[in-house]
Amino acid sequence: MAKNAFYAQSGGVTSVINASACGVIEAARRHKDKIANVYAGRNGIIGALTEDLIDTSQESDAAIHALRYTPSGAFGSCRFKLKGLEKSAREYERLIEVFRAHDIGYFFYNGGNDSMDTALKLSQIGSQMGYPLVCVGVPKTVDNDLPITDNCPGFGSVAKYVAMSTREAAFDVASMAKTSTKVFVLEVMGRHAGWITSAVGMADDEETPIPLVLLFPEIAYDEAAFLAAVDAKTKAHGYCCIGVSEGLSDASGRLLAEAGSKDAFGHAQLGGVGPLVAHIVKEKLGYKYHWAVADYLQRAARHIASGTDVEQAYAVGEAAVELAIKGHNSIMPTVVRVSQNPYKWEIGEAPLSQVANVEKFMPRDFITEDGFGITQACRDYLVPLIQGEEYPPFHNGMPRYVTLKNAPVAKKLAEFKL
Amino acid sequence: MAKNAFYAQSGGVTSVINASACGVIEAARRHKDKIANVYAGRNGIIGALTEDLIDTSQESDAAIHALRYTPSGAFGSCRFKLKGLEKSAREYERLIEVFRAHDIGYFFYNGGNDSMDTALKLSQIGSQMGYPLVCVGVPKTVDNDLPITDNCPGFGSVAKYVAMSTREAAFDVASMAKTSTKVFVLEVMGRHAGWITSAVGMADDEETPIPLVLLFPEIAYDEAAFLAAVDAKTKAHGYCCIGVSEGLSDASGRLLAEAGSKDAFGHAQLGGVGPLVAHIVKEKLGYKYHWAVADYLQRAARHIASGTDVEQAYAVGEAAVELAIKGHNSIMPTVVRVSQNPYKWEIGEAPLSQVANVEKFMPRDFITEDGFGITQACRDYLVPLIQGEEYPPFHNGMPRYVTLKNAPVAKKLAEFKL
Repeated sequence: MAKNAFYAQSGGVTSVINASACGVIEAARRHKDKIANVYAGRNGIIGALTEDLIDTSQESDAAIHALRYTPSGAFGSCRFKLKGLEKSAREYERLIEVFRAHDIGYFFYNGGNDSMDTALKLSQIGSQMGYPLVCVGVPKTVDNDLPITDNCPGFGSVAKYVAMSTREAAFDVASMAKTSTKVFVLEVMGRHAGWITSAVGMADDEETPIPLVLLFPEIAYDEAAFLAAVDAKTKAHGYCCIGVSEGLSDASGRLLAEAGSKDAFGHAQLGGVGPLVAHIVKEKLGYKYHWAVADYLQRAARHIASGTDVEQAYAVGEAAVELAIKGHNSIMPTVVRVSQNPYKWEIGEAPLSQVANVEKFMPRDFITEDGFGITQACRDYLVPLIQGEEYPPFHNGMPRYVTLKNAPVAKKLAEFKL
Repeated sequence: MAKNAFYAQSGGVTSVINASACGVIEAARRHKDKIANVYAGRNGIIGALTEDLIDTSQESDAAIHALRYTPSGAFGSCRFKLKGLEKSAREYERLIEVFRAHDIGYFFYNGGNDSMDTALKLSQIGSQMGYPLVCVGVPKTVDNDLPITDNCPGFGSVAKYVAMSTREAAFDVASMAKTSTKVFVLEVMGRHAGWITSAVGMADDEETPIPLVLLFPEIAYDEAAFLAAVDAKTKAHGYCCIGVSEGLSDASGRLLAEAGSKDAFGHAQLGGVGPLVAHIVKEKLGYKYHWAVADYLQRAARHIASGTDVEQAYAVGEAAVELAIKGHNSIMPTVVRVSQNPYKWEIGEAPLSQVANVEKFMPRDFITEDGFGITQACRDYLVPLIQGEEYPPFHNGMPRYVTLKNAPVAKKLAEFKL
């Protein structure tokens, strides 16, 4: 007997999280015998807690298909972390109550480490409360820091964006360096793991050499060594580009640019290390600089998403449904690298218990010995992830992204205060 | 009898200035009877002063063609302003000396207001010194502030980039606004003229409505009115995006973010008004914010250049040569808007004397009465300029841009100290 499915987007969105939503909903529509309807949480898990569900059956096939090329979270996301089963018992019980009221038998949670923990706990409490729920995580994070999966949907597109943007800016700086800007700094995302920083390294390759200095969150900031590296590159090539992680920290673990405020997960809200590093270069080396902070632009840049990333984002969404209806529970579909050259991948699966709250950092051998560059092993890992361009449709000079109707499902329960 | 031509790139580069270089060189190669060879200045006019000329005949047709899709200045640009004929007499005389030594009869200068002034003065001193030189300016500036021409090559691509990036970031913020970021700020270029700021306004259209507040350099910053506009949009739509010009100033003309340093032209070097405005919003309205400063990324983003812009950049380069060999002197090819709907354009020409050192600001009726948006007239003007995508070739996931050999021409003269 068919049950309904619940799908929600969690945490920072990406340019391809909607491609995963597309995969989930299109797969569900092919299995009407198992999944009657997909209800999406409006603003993520908050939609489930407040019984604010979106009826995706109101959306046309064309609208759902357009999610494949629309960045951001079409149903709304949220930063709202459920704690342990005891501390957040009220919330977990409410979720089961809502799911029971709407005959929801499948829970698809599209997010990162924290979300995988929530999905795991929900499957546990469902069993305890006599309401069995198939809980499947759908991996998503630009930070690329989920374990087991070879890479995380969302990352490849940011990687492509920062590598390409750095190359384009480098060409610009090279033109200006004789009399003007000699050092260009790009600040990139990645609080703890330097994957996005490493992607900046792909701006430089054999065919198009570009002098780069990278500042990883995994490598304690050493000002003297950093300045020596920048000075050497600038003297040798006339200019230098710097990619710096928002999470760059000194040897004591203190963030270089601590904004002082914290987000809902208790993470420090970052920003500003790019201009800081640029000022240090100017003050100590005297080079004229420019800096850029791409911020949301990097994770929303669907216009230049990686084709590989779009395909994998879609595939993990589709696989989540296929696995769930086969009864696989408390798992997350993963990307498995089958072969390196030619690059081949397939979908695997990992137990949520092995994924939840585990962060995957850059292996030390992906970073050059001096700490300022990427190794060939890193490059071999990264290059397949940025392959292919899957351009969105343009209309009147602008990308045409879909905005869904997001029609509500009628409520059945009393109000719930968050 | 064929003469050689000199071509140089001046000032801040763009994603399509090389398309103009491509137009110049390809046209010259079709007129070997008139133009024997094109020598490019290495690092702009400095290359002419120091007799550091690049022999473009060493480049294959394929390499020259690749300039059409390569951002930045392939021969190097510079920020080096020649002053009046008296103050800079030594430099002007040196230029004529170099041109005479290398049998250069044509001077093509690809730049903005200052460059058109240099080209004009050079044609005057050439006559005075008995060395007639055909001087043709090739318009280029992301600021879109040259007079007479309907628009400036370089601008349309930045316009497309900032409109598209704002739309993409707006989708991101809309997803997050329930529990996290509600206000997103994008700082854009444009020191005095708000053309690029106006382009942010195209992120919002009838099909894809987006709550926007724009801060133009032409409109004195009024904090109370600004905060009221942001608050109203955020309350009505749940989120708001802000586009702010780097040149935003208060009623007394003081820049909001004065970095204190000046560039070679005596312009203040700007940056940082984006984060400043974001902090004001947070402090006064309490909304969580993110901000981005695209900096060079916006003017180097050849990957998403406007098709119209690429065509026009090529056309003004090509026309410069065609006009020059017909003997038109001291002129600049312009873009003429022949019809609005359907958009049609053709190449015209303007005397350098009417272009040099004149800045074109936004007409007041392109900005809404409240000062925070664009009018329909502005939209009608802008929309044709961002039409079309002319993607560069990609290889291994990255755009393949050309780096020229830039072989030097043998020197004939004594050294010249700048």
